[in-house]
Amino acid sequence: MIDYDLVAQGNQLALSRLLTEVENGTQSGRKALDDFFIKSGRAHLVGITGAPGTGKSSLVSCLTRVFRQQYSMSVAIVAIDPSSPFTGGAILGDRVRMRDLAGDPGIFIRSMASRGALGGLANATAGVVQILDAAGFDVIMIETVGAGQNEVDIARLAHTTIVVDSPGMGDDIQAIKAGILEIADILVINKADRPGVENTERALRANLDLGHTVMMNHNAGHATVISEIESQRKDWIPPVLRTIATQNSGITEVVSSILDHRRFLEESGLWAVRDQERLRTEVEHQLREELVERWRKTVPAEKYEEVLKKVYARKLSPGTAILTLMGDYSL
Amino acid sequence: MIDYDLVAQGNQLALSRLLTEVENGTQSGRKALDDFFIKSGRAHLVGITGAPGTGKSSLVSCLTRVFRQQYSMSVAIVAIDPSSPFTGGAILGDRVRMRDLAGDPGIFIRSMASRGALGGLANATAGVVQILDAAGFDVIMIETVGAGQNEVDIARLAHTTIVVDSPGMGDDIQAIKAGILEIADILVINKADRPGVENTERALRANLDLGHTVMMNHNAGHATVISEIESQRKDWIPPVLRTIATQNSGITEVVSSILDHRRFLEESGLWAVRDQERLRTEVEHQLREELVERWRKTVPAEKYEEVLKKVYARKLSPGTAILTLMGDYSL
Repeated sequence: MIDYDLVAQGNQLALSRLLTEVENGTQSGRKALDDFFIKSGRAHLVGITGAPGTGKSSLVSCLTRVFRQQYSMSVAIVAIDPSSPFTGGAILGDRVRMRDLAGDPGIFIRSMASRGALGGLANATAGVVQILDAAGFDVIMIETVGAGQNEVDIARLAHTTIVVDSPGMGDDIQAIKAGILEIADILVINKADRPGVENTERALRANLDLGHTVMMNHNAGHATVISEIESQRKDWIPPVLRTIATQNSGITEVVSSILDHRRFLEESGLWAVRDQERLRTEVEHQLREELVERWRKTVPAEKYEEVLKKVYARKLSPGTAILTLMGDYSL
Repeated sequence: MIDYDLVAQGNQLALSRLLTEVENGTQSGRKALDDFFIKSGRAHLVGITGAPGTGKSSLVSCLTRVFRQQYSMSVAIVAIDPSSPFTGGAILGDRVRMRDLAGDPGIFIRSMASRGALGGLANATAGVVQILDAAGFDVIMIETVGAGQNEVDIARLAHTTIVVDSPGMGDDIQAIKAGILEIADILVINKADRPGVENTERALRANLDLGHTVMMNHNAGHATVISEIESQRKDWIPPVLRTIATQNSGITEVVSSILDHRRFLEESGLWAVRDQERLRTEVEHQLREELVERWRKTVPAEKYEEVLKKVYARKLSPGTAILTLMGDYSL
């Protein structure tokens, strides 16, 4: 049994346990998602993404400190990047830096297993973020490594997406980032004391301008909402900011920019649009799972395996197999 | 209309058009998947994954040349890595190298959009690979960037997974690879003329040994099949091979190893196990899509939007919303 009162009182152990249930998709995890849902919708979700080696995690630590000390805001960190020191796969120096954040009840750190999550990582993350939101955290920072569809899906959870770059990353890595730049609300060049910072900034600005002329080619179902977001987001010009996280330099400017972006979202109505898009996706995902679960209960396991065997033997295509099964069994 | 005869005759334009239909999930794309399915199951699917900058694409070019020239095998390349020169986001030098491969009818190159694919990239890739398989290619190389769940999912498509590393990549990148190493059948250290190659090899071997003691924590449905694969794969010790793709050095050894691995899979029965695992996943995915599509047709759009609005207003949780809708409407 999960003690909801303890979670509401900010008990970190109770919260951790609840998140594990949610991540594992257990009965009580699913119930908690239902029960906590009405309290969600307040937190500012900030995605932080970028290639490995750009110093995302150090930046997240610095931002957290400013949110706590200058704004008295509570912060939850959700680390998905498998190379993040928050997830434990750590370089010693980073671990030590993280330790500053421990012990403060207004800071909560959660690392996500990068696979094995039931129904996919993006969905497990959505559940964890929803609980943290309902638990009352003001800011939830979601750290991902910036490569691939998964990261884009997760970034789409966020109200504000920060893409972190640093000078001297290879050309290959630059190319990877091109995809993720389109979803950036704020660009941060970390390690800005390194040589080549001007080149990095020039490249980012060039890509940004390019990104603004590219229409994203999303899947059909969400096209309307997304293009609405895309057209409205043009009123926000993503700032390019320089930081040196190890020297705590440029951090307050990034925090100000995050808060500016929140204000922009609220005033433009985009806050609600993004919230609704997220919820629609979640409803559709859960619908899928529930339908399959119910339907599977109507089909005898032997019958299902029998049809699968015909597929294995290439006598029946997967598509035909399904139509066969659905003809014989229905919800 | 897609001309199946032209595709069967190896007409690359007809094949390209067909793959676009499959990727977009159109009616004729889905029909083609059904029609071509019975001819599939022959090709050797080889996944090539690794961090950006390890020279995966050059390696793929070199391997392709050996398959063609020494073994007279036809090769299809499916590039998913957004930084791959095959996908067009190219560095000039690589582009030039790729050009060698063009013009040979026994080589086909397909790049996948890294997002927007209906039903997810892994599934779109599965469809594309199935058509290429049925079209008669002997080897299908699937190139992905090695970070994240998506890449692991795609690698799981393959019979043989090659993880590419190179000396002098940062610690961060090392950490990312830890996850993907567990699925490696062959390890290649490319750019082996660079300093630090001994360290890279030592680190890889250490990780490999570690990986063999770690039980993977997969989602429940497939646990049995996967653990069967995992226990059987222990009979294959992944070789660690050095290459310098730019000098064409070490390439024939990698090709031999790929062919050895195929023989191992066939003799151990793992070839069939992996094939069946892939087909089971595909059946389950299509089942999901079909059930949702059918159910959605029974629900009036206004009713669905009405319930969604209650979710947006935090009056109804997504879980409760679904149960409400499913109580009122059924298949």
